[in-house]
Amino acid sequence: MAESANGKAGDLRSTFLRVYSDLKSELLHDPAFDFTEDSREWVERMLDYNVPKGKLNRGLSVVDSYKLLKEGKELSEEEIFLACALGWCIEWLQAYFLVLDDIMDNSHTRRGQLCWFRLPKVGLIAANDGIILRNHIFRILKNHFKERPYYVELMDLFNEVEFQTASGQMLDLITTIEGEKDLAKYKLPVHRRIVEYKTAYYSFYLPVACALLMSGENLDNFVAVKDILVQMGIYFQVQDDYLDCFGDPDVIGKIGTDIEDFKCSWLVVQALERADENQKKILNENYGKLDADCVSKVKALYKDLNLEAAFFEYESKSYEQLISAIEAQPSVAVQEVLKSFLGKIYKRKK
Amino acid sequence: MAESANGKAGDLRSTFLRVYSDLKSELLHDPAFDFTEDSREWVERMLDYNVPKGKLNRGLSVVDSYKLLKEGKELSEEEIFLACALGWCIEWLQAYFLVLDDIMDNSHTRRGQLCWFRLPKVGLIAANDGIILRNHIFRILKNHFKERPYYVELMDLFNEVEFQTASGQMLDLITTIEGEKDLAKYKLPVHRRIVEYKTAYYSFYLPVACALLMSGENLDNFVAVKDILVQMGIYFQVQDDYLDCFGDPDVIGKIGTDIEDFKCSWLVVQALERADENQKKILNENYGKLDADCVSKVKALYKDLNLEAAFFEYESKSYEQLISAIEAQPSVAVQEVLKSFLGKIYKRKK
Repeated sequence: MAESANGKAGDLRSTFLRVYSDLKSELLHDPAFDFTEDSREWVERMLDYNVPKGKLNRGLSVVDSYKLLKEGKELSEEEIFLACALGWCIEWLQAYFLVLDDIMDNSHTRRGQLCWFRLPKVGLIAANDGIILRNHIFRILKNHFKERPYYVELMDLFNEVEFQTASGQMLDLITTIEGEKDLAKYKLPVHRRIVEYKTAYYSFYLPVACALLMSGENLDNFVAVKDILVQMGIYFQVQDDYLDCFGDPDVIGKIGTDIEDFKCSWLVVQALERADENQKKILNENYGKLDADCVSKVKALYKDLNLEAAFFEYESKSYEQLISAIEAQPSVAVQEVLKSFLGKIYKRKK
Repeated sequence: MAESANGKAGDLRSTFLRVYSDLKSELLHDPAFDFTEDSREWVERMLDYNVPKGKLNRGLSVVDSYKLLKEGKELSEEEIFLACALGWCIEWLQAYFLVLDDIMDNSHTRRGQLCWFRLPKVGLIAANDGIILRNHIFRILKNHFKERPYYVELMDLFNEVEFQTASGQMLDLITTIEGEKDLAKYKLPVHRRIVEYKTAYYSFYLPVACALLMSGENLDNFVAVKDILVQMGIYFQVQDDYLDCFGDPDVIGKIGTDIEDFKCSWLVVQALERADENQKKILNENYGKLDADCVSKVKALYKDLNLEAAFFEYESKSYEQLISAIEAQPSVAVQEVLKSFLGKIYKRKK
């Protein structure tokens, strides 16, 4: 997290975490379900394990964006609470996707701890916990936004973004099956489509769209903003692909397994574009194998092909293109929102 | 399905299936996602495998209920389409729960075919397919109900019922873990709470609530109707527990595994109430074991304890209680709706 100009980033984070406690407590006493003591304890442990353990960038950025859209006007207590609540809805959405993704990818660690489904008492109950997390979003929206004029738009927004994310995840999963038969299918447009749907909408567009709705805006008037945020999301996912292989596991909180998992990663797409016949043979023989030697051979090839340099070039070029698209935006407040987002991810190490 | 009075049940079913094709085709061309050919084929196969293969009782009952609420007035083409679409939303919801439940329960067959996740090419991708199914509901609602005055209530209804169902499923799953330590925890109120949330709301209340919303009613005025439908749902699940052990697998479309799975079934609850110390020992030693001998011992004990007769007594008593609650309802049309529901499940064999 970049510090905000007035040095209050720490304050914002503690306010944000206080709102988490409030929302959790409400959910644990939801009158729509007759909790037993065991089930209340289960949900509390599940929430604490999965929801507030990340970087909280997506959630905090709703509050940051809303502040910028208000152009310096002081926010009321209620506005802060509502912006935080929407931020938490995105963190809940993220937790829901991660819990289910970890089951499907058979992952081991997440955010520096064992994946939820790996805990001995949890197992596949985690799939239902994912569903509970998803349902909490709409409980939070109903509890706090039902009387707001933008309630319907908010529900439509979360539903559409969830649909796009699940569709991107599907594309990722079935492309991986296809890739196992024929690595040559991994081309840049395939990669782009997966990451646009799987990551960009919920991580980049959704926080800004929430802030815009809270500001009384009609989302139909912000198609260009959406496009910029989707581009930023694609850039973010390319970073993710890069860090999965070249990042420090202690810093990113997980051990990357894209090579073992036969993922259509930006790195393998770039490698296939640059490789000669001999190098393609190395990729075909070693990509997607659990064996540590095979993984090492793929990583060595990435180094030979200078993919680190290719990534840094991609990073600078994306940054320049995004900045010029942002500066073409008519509203200075919107420019600020977009630049603040970009500032948070440019050259990130985790 | 009981035949409707004017003998048009067959017609209704074919109209209903036609609407399925329309809805499917819309979803396969949803502009919110840029389908590849592979992903479109995947979704189509997944829908055809999982959505229209059941008895369709839940879905058809939306149309039946709406007709009865209109008290014999001819329905327009549009009304029929909309009632069918809501019916399909419930079938989609059901498919979503079943796909995920089968993964969590490690089931083998469902509706007379292999469980979706058991297909060689599918595996855990099924978890994401479940999510896609769930998301389709809100795509259908948005496509066809966005301009209706009850759109918000419809979304709130589906969200609340989904939350209750997932909470009931959680209770079932964690109670099963607890039961493995101590079978004595399986008592009637525990069973009742699980089935109320896990089954009754979505299977019984939801179809009627959809029909009421389409008729312009405010659901707050139908709390007594909700209570009756929840009671009916509990009775339905007791039948399910009974059929899991005593039903014909060819007729019910699956091989029951409640005994192997240590489920808090109505049968084990009744057995524990009736058993002497020696019989309790048999239950403790044999319930929840995969071994076929253990299962046979439990089934033999159920016969010794006369649980079949106990079930038939429960069935008659529930029927009488439901009929008298229904006849206390002020609206004759509502009485008809409730009686039609009860007629469909009383003494069912599948």
